[in-house]
Amino acid sequence: MSPATEAEIRQTNRIFEEEVVARRDVGALDRVYTADATILPPGADTVTGRENIKQFWAAAIARLNVSSVQMETVSFDVAADTGFEIGRATLHFPADAPDVSVKYVVVWKREDGTWKWHIDIWNMNP
Amino acid sequence: MSPATEAEIRQTNRIFEEEVVARRDVGALDRVYTADATILPPGADTVTGRENIKQFWAAAIARLNVSSVQMETVSFDVAADTGFEIGRATLHFPADAPDVSVKYVVVWKREDGTWKWHIDIWNMNP
Repeated sequence: MSPATEAEIRQTNRIFEEEVVARRDVGALDRVYTADATILPPGADTVTGRENIKQFWAAAIARLNVSSVQMETVSFDVAADTGFEIGRATLHFPADAPDVSVKYVVVWKREDGTWKWHIDIWNMNP
Repeated sequence: MSPATEAEIRQTNRIFEEEVVARRDVGALDRVYTADATILPPGADTVTGRENIKQFWAAAIARLNVSSVQMETVSFDVAADTGFEIGRATLHFPADAPDVSVKYVVVWKREDGTWKWHIDIWNMNP
């Protein structure tokens, strides 16, 4: 992956960590997901379209009471206008609640000149 | 997706349904996964490499005692040498055990002239 691409995808993932989760600003998802993105959350139905995805995350972050999340890209490859990432994320919670570890695959597309999440699926680690 | 591509990916998915799961022939995974494929199973660690993936599926199919699986492609897009599939699968079990419904994302790559699964992640439906 080129340094420019690496910087761009890191930036998008930082928006999710710092603005969406830590500051509860789901409006920032405009800069994370494509307009017609799809998410496939574990134990829930598929959600399609950025506005519906905002509602999903607003409810999920509040319900789980996540304090913060740390994402780590394990691999990222590009094919034409599409990228595909394997990553892992650690969710932190208030007080002494234990961390939760998840892994994910994100298919990225370019929209408005930047890389965004187009298909997002994750599940739990052991 | 072109009719030729559609027929090819359908064929690969049929190998998984009919040979791997229904007939317990994990050797047929040579025609399903790329040699350096990665799977991200829910509740388990990531598995990399086709030989390790064969061991995973041999153990998982035996442990779960799956009778058969039906896969359905919801969407499939191509970018250069890579394909992106969203799908759902229904697992059937012996006797009166209830079906299990999962959804998945598979990143496909061409290997030896055919489309194969290169990254495979799934999780449970509600």
